[in-house]
Amino acid sequence: MRGVVKGFQFSAITAGIKAGGRPDLALICSEVPAIVVGAFTTNQVQAAPVTVSKRNIRSGWCSAIIINSGNANACTGARGLQDAEWMVKETSDRLHLPRQHVLVCSTGKIGEWIPRKSLHRGIPRLVKGLSPQGASSVARAILTTDRGPKISFFEGKIGKKKFHLLGIAKGAGMIFPRMKREATMLAFLMTDLRIGRPLLKSIFDRVLDQTFHCITVDGDTSTNDTVLLIANGMAAAPLAVRSGSKEALLFEKGLHQVMQELALKIVQDGEGATKRVQIDVLGARSWQEAQRVAETIAHSPLVKTSFFGEDPNWGRILAAVGRSKVRIDPDVVDIYYNNVCLVKRGLRRSVGAERRAHHVMKKNDFRVTIALHQGNARFSLWTSDLGTNYVKLNATYRT
Amino acid sequence: MRGVVKGFQFSAITAGIKAGGRPDLALICSEVPAIVVGAFTTNQVQAAPVTVSKRNIRSGWCSAIIINSGNANACTGARGLQDAEWMVKETSDRLHLPRQHVLVCSTGKIGEWIPRKSLHRGIPRLVKGLSPQGASSVARAILTTDRGPKISFFEGKIGKKKFHLLGIAKGAGMIFPRMKREATMLAFLMTDLRIGRPLLKSIFDRVLDQTFHCITVDGDTSTNDTVLLIANGMAAAPLAVRSGSKEALLFEKGLHQVMQELALKIVQDGEGATKRVQIDVLGARSWQEAQRVAETIAHSPLVKTSFFGEDPNWGRILAAVGRSKVRIDPDVVDIYYNNVCLVKRGLRRSVGAERRAHHVMKKNDFRVTIALHQGNARFSLWTSDLGTNYVKLNATYRT
Repeated sequence: MRGVVKGFQFSAITAGIKAGGRPDLALICSEVPAIVVGAFTTNQVQAAPVTVSKRNIRSGWCSAIIINSGNANACTGARGLQDAEWMVKETSDRLHLPRQHVLVCSTGKIGEWIPRKSLHRGIPRLVKGLSPQGASSVARAILTTDRGPKISFFEGKIGKKKFHLLGIAKGAGMIFPRMKREATMLAFLMTDLRIGRPLLKSIFDRVLDQTFHCITVDGDTSTNDTVLLIANGMAAAPLAVRSGSKEALLFEKGLHQVMQELALKIVQDGEGATKRVQIDVLGARSWQEAQRVAETIAHSPLVKTSFFGEDPNWGRILAAVGRSKVRIDPDVVDIYYNNVCLVKRGLRRSVGAERRAHHVMKKNDFRVTIALHQGNARFSLWTSDLGTNYVKLNATYRT
Repeated sequence: MRGVVKGFQFSAITAGIKAGGRPDLALICSEVPAIVVGAFTTNQVQAAPVTVSKRNIRSGWCSAIIINSGNANACTGARGLQDAEWMVKETSDRLHLPRQHVLVCSTGKIGEWIPRKSLHRGIPRLVKGLSPQGASSVARAILTTDRGPKISFFEGKIGKKKFHLLGIAKGAGMIFPRMKREATMLAFLMTDLRIGRPLLKSIFDRVLDQTFHCITVDGDTSTNDTVLLIANGMAAAPLAVRSGSKEALLFEKGLHQVMQELALKIVQDGEGATKRVQIDVLGARSWQEAQRVAETIAHSPLVKTSFFGEDPNWGRILAAVGRSKVRIDPDVVDIYYNNVCLVKRGLRRSVGAERRAHHVMKKNDFRVTIALHQGNARFSLWTSDLGTNYVKLNATYRT
């Protein structure tokens, strides 16, 4: 934690939802009513807290977010919906807030009821613990199979006055966020900048497409994905930021930096991941076609296991390109691993190049570039490898 | 091997393409010119032997198929094409056949040249070894990462006269055969029935859709997939089979039995597979929608690892149904593991049901049924689990 966003307070406790005494209940509050924009999963199977938060966010205002881990409250029917509403009510009552200014998020096991008793005992303790310094404890309490907390901070200046931006996220499995698709990814972004809601929404949507919508761990989209951005206007910089202004551009840059950092941390911390790979598709006819090719590569189990094995198996990449629904000419395709050209015009370069590519792959972080040579559009996607730990984690998740 | 198909001979040798002295070159011959129908991968990246065989099959006749394993001759450009043509020429010269009556198939590593020297030395030995009893040696020589050979046999009677049908296949990885898609799956079907080519083609296409097009191992479609069906008319039953006749129905039944047995063996022997799971999607608006839902489930890494872990994690199945591009109502969906109902109208049944489903999953072979309750269409798909051995096999394939 490098800094504090004015007017925000945080709290986290162990309520007993998760086994093993790990923290599992968190609260984020703004001291004054804040404007809010957000995005939610597009999976047709939507968790109860998603339904409730999607309704409450329509008010445009948010003063508190209550978050639990260990239980997704998904596929829980009418009772699950009542439980999510009840979490909002318990929180808003304690904080003396209108109910529609409280949002709720859950992540964890699907299909089980929320343990109301533990939450009923926990929420008063949670409220008591609120503090401006508690962001890192929230970052830990929202984790499920993540290896560690994910936080990012940005400080900007308007004239001589500062504003701040703080992001907290969790990821791990079921990660293919199209917030209008889904993956159990939660991200909370808080700023003290004063900014109007329409401008905040347009900046948020643009940055979302450039960051969280460019990552995938396993192509499985979850029932609970939620990203929320809250602005409470309490920064020293007094004037509201206007569209197209230098300040709006600075804020967009900061938001991009924070969301990109969180997105890359989520990929790096994908379940069992040992590699983070940037898939660059260039020379496509449209960015949508480039995206489709990149996703086919990133979701191929054969490609992902070759990343894990540090094997520059470009044949699997070319085969994935060939089976994507995009019309391509295999005889003009080039493939690079970082700067090592492995395939030129559809043909293998040399055994020496494969040896050099193997060395590239020993890094935790490398780039695979596919040049299609049929247009000027491109798309970059970040993904992880598929290793034995992914299997072990997911084969035993519930036992 | 339970029987012999009249007029067919087989041979297999170790030519030195694969390491370790395993057999890697095979030949299937008909003593008389036979009619042939086939299907090839729809991957846009097509191996050289696919290009050559697709051209030669247009003659409608086939007397010999030369097959090598250990090298896919894919992504090998103009030289690869010359190599595939050369394999046809060497074989047709030795057997005194027109070149266009010889087909060629390859499977193995992508992007390496065929070792002509080994094949030049091998083909004469291969021809010398031809024998009516050699089918099982061919079945072994075409394998790559398969655990064992895959053979199926059918004998039918027309009046008092018998006809025969023999199938040989290989599978393992890159298995998502849409022969108009691709996966390194090879299958050779031989019959001594006398039948016209248009009728043979229509029966073959129908059975292909019901068998090989209903399996998937990893959703990765290969560059080399080929299925060939050859009929040489040498059975004792003398008259040509006519469309709609009892005999045509009997042949179709036999072909279905043989191709289904081979398809299921391929799934059972998927790379590192420990389970074979039938995904039944019922109550869809169309079979295409049912197929799309079934494929989304079968390709979900989270679902596949839960099969490996014998964990009845129905939430992952429901989440996959929800992210498929098919419009569904999650609140009416039922999910069964064999006859155990886990989810009724979108809600979990009971902890007891999960315990019973866990026992179902201990079997090597079980069925997951998803009832969508929105129409009368259905689709069944067979798939395998994703275990640590899949990762280990594919992370180290080339090293």
